[in-house]
Amino acid sequence: MSKSFIEVSPESHFSIQNIPFGIFSTQSEPTPRVGTAIGDYAVDLKALAHAGLFDQVPEIAAKAKDIFSKSTLNLFMAQGKPVWTATRKFIQSILSSENSILRDNQALRTSVFVPLNQVKMHMPAEIGDYTDFYASKEHATNVGIMFRGKDNALQPNWKHLPVGYHGRASSVVVSGTDIRRPCGQKSPGKDQPPVFGVCARLDIELEMAFLVGTGNELGSNIPIEKAEEHIFRRCTRDIQAWEYVPLGPFLGKSFGTTISPWVVTLDALKPFALAQPKQDPTPLPYLQSNSDDAYDISLEVHLKPNGSSDYSTISKSNLKYMYWSFRQMLAHHTVNGCNARAGDLCGTGTISGPTEDSYGSMLEMTWSGQKEISLNSGIKRKFLEDGDEVNLIGFCQGEGYRVGFGDCVGKITPASSI
Amino acid sequence: MSKSFIEVSPESHFSIQNIPFGIFSTQSEPTPRVGTAIGDYAVDLKALAHAGLFDQVPEIAAKAKDIFSKSTLNLFMAQGKPVWTATRKFIQSILSSENSILRDNQALRTSVFVPLNQVKMHMPAEIGDYTDFYASKEHATNVGIMFRGKDNALQPNWKHLPVGYHGRASSVVVSGTDIRRPCGQKSPGKDQPPVFGVCARLDIELEMAFLVGTGNELGSNIPIEKAEEHIFRRCTRDIQAWEYVPLGPFLGKSFGTTISPWVVTLDALKPFALAQPKQDPTPLPYLQSNSDDAYDISLEVHLKPNGSSDYSTISKSNLKYMYWSFRQMLAHHTVNGCNARAGDLCGTGTISGPTEDSYGSMLEMTWSGQKEISLNSGIKRKFLEDGDEVNLIGFCQGEGYRVGFGDCVGKITPASSI
Repeated sequence: MSKSFIEVSPESHFSIQNIPFGIFSTQSEPTPRVGTAIGDYAVDLKALAHAGLFDQVPEIAAKAKDIFSKSTLNLFMAQGKPVWTATRKFIQSILSSENSILRDNQALRTSVFVPLNQVKMHMPAEIGDYTDFYASKEHATNVGIMFRGKDNALQPNWKHLPVGYHGRASSVVVSGTDIRRPCGQKSPGKDQPPVFGVCARLDIELEMAFLVGTGNELGSNIPIEKAEEHIFRRCTRDIQAWEYVPLGPFLGKSFGTTISPWVVTLDALKPFALAQPKQDPTPLPYLQSNSDDAYDISLEVHLKPNGSSDYSTISKSNLKYMYWSFRQMLAHHTVNGCNARAGDLCGTGTISGPTEDSYGSMLEMTWSGQKEISLNSGIKRKFLEDGDEVNLIGFCQGEGYRVGFGDCVGKITPASSI
Repeated sequence: MSKSFIEVSPESHFSIQNIPFGIFSTQSEPTPRVGTAIGDYAVDLKALAHAGLFDQVPEIAAKAKDIFSKSTLNLFMAQGKPVWTATRKFIQSILSSENSILRDNQALRTSVFVPLNQVKMHMPAEIGDYTDFYASKEHATNVGIMFRGKDNALQPNWKHLPVGYHGRASSVVVSGTDIRRPCGQKSPGKDQPPVFGVCARLDIELEMAFLVGTGNELGSNIPIEKAEEHIFRRCTRDIQAWEYVPLGPFLGKSFGTTISPWVVTLDALKPFALAQPKQDPTPLPYLQSNSDDAYDISLEVHLKPNGSSDYSTISKSNLKYMYWSFRQMLAHHTVNGCNARAGDLCGTGTISGPTEDSYGSMLEMTWSGQKEISLNSGIKRKFLEDGDEVNLIGFCQGEGYRVGFGDCVGKITPASSI
């Protein structure tokens, strides 16, 4: 891969090997539109389209102006994988230091490159349905031990199918949106009536997610070789122990799910693919695939406590530990005939690694509040406090470059008085 | 209430007291648009708006052409209750036999009235999120007895909050859409590996639902006095016993949820309001209200078995039995700061009455397949077979008139071969 004429530091998430897609606006042009990112710059794809640059790409030429003028990626995603692949390849070529078409057109460069610290990022997609899985064996085991003991840690179905539940699409927000501490009913103890109050054990969940590109009709299914795009997100949780019996998490999962604004394509992640953890027992045929379906993506949880200006890294994990693959999730999700639509969001559930320093939730890091997490300057935490800020980082490490998702930040604001 | 110049039989669901809203198209004008129904006719509100009739209604005058040209009710619903109320009242006035403006304008009548059997009905709203509650005490008790025995029938949280879960919006379809029998994993017995197969115990769930009109911001909540609109829907279920541990129903609830095409306003249902069942223990303050929050709506399940031309009535229930009110559902749903949006759908969960002939699912009617349901012509059923057609009927009985939701029909088609 050649270098870009735009300087990209080795730590930047937005190398020429990446070319993520997102929705941005600027002060001078406040209408949200489609862009990509390279180094410290957003690249205005709408402006590139209007300058006629995509006219050379047969897969998208006729529609580029329309697709890149939209305020979500849904139309682009609905075009299908050949269009995504051709578009990303073409953008890589015009950002290359060897290609003069953009490099030497100073007027065009001025209109299409905007420093990332001067853009406002928006939700990348209109999310139709949001599904959350529970695909990390380490996480499910840890939670199982805490709530049911060592002998019944994993439920009997867990290794046979990717357990999932329907989430709440309305409360998915883009990085940078504050998250208000939720209220709800809690049980003070067995056989005691519930009390209403503010969530005390507010947690994070380190997850990865993919967006459905092209959908399927109701009554049909998506076989396991289906393509997806990937994004990065985090959400928080509590309250749920009392109310989730017997139909699963509800209010504990609908007050805020933060996603990164940049969508990284599977094409960009492919060099970091590897074999997924061995599945024993072998899953049923509709869940079997021979591909390298795991991805080596470093995941980090950074926490900046209220009043501090300093982030501490409280967890380092990796997507490669995940038991169930994205393919398996989508094949299972639609095997009953459920229709998926462009823009549907599917989360992995909390991703934990095998060691204590790789757990993806504070519930696990503190082992249900029994221990404390030490931050810089001697500050300690069991769960999130008001004013705390969390950043979830995900990137693939190449030789001298990174392919990453950028920041995924949320700050906790106090509960409203009800 | 005066009569309409359009003849309405006493059994019609679409009296002048109703004035429901829906989305329809015709062969001569295939673009979906907003309409109402009276007697055997759909009324084209877009055509009425373009003829200038809404110019007299200040609440909607400026926007009527735009609102009624839309292919969903979302924009209309987002206007808020004063607009819905004024619009319905005005439509009642121009359909009245005492008002000459439409009655005596033969040209306009020809363009706005279309026989209902000549229109195609569409989804009334673009549904953002779909939430399903579990609000019928009789149903929760029956299911609890079957799965956990008499002593633990109701879970300890059940009387303290309306238990709910996030559903799948993509698979909500309008009356008349076929429902394909789903496939999935099933457990053949304890400690045996699961098998893949076709759902054998395909069931119906008799429910009511409301659509959220105006929404709220993430981090805020909707107090219990919030207005809603109501619709009628049915969905089906099975598969779920194996896969729903521990995060709740997933594939068992995402292959088809049928809703009626006509949305009946709360204004039309108000004359049929009555006190809801006594709640003991008294719920927490945020769930308390002094209004008559139950509605006397007769509910019927009609089943036409494969090969027959004859519907049998297999259940007669009533919405008034429901333990938790619509208000309580919405107040609870948003108490954690979850945002609701215009077009969100909230279902009651299966509504069962106190007697065997008022159960809302075949699971209860056959007591988990132990008994058979007798249909006309000696046909029997335990669960739904391919080719079976279900119609869920809901209406309020006034003196000489009805306010109803029309048909809510779904036919079961065979599973796809996977």
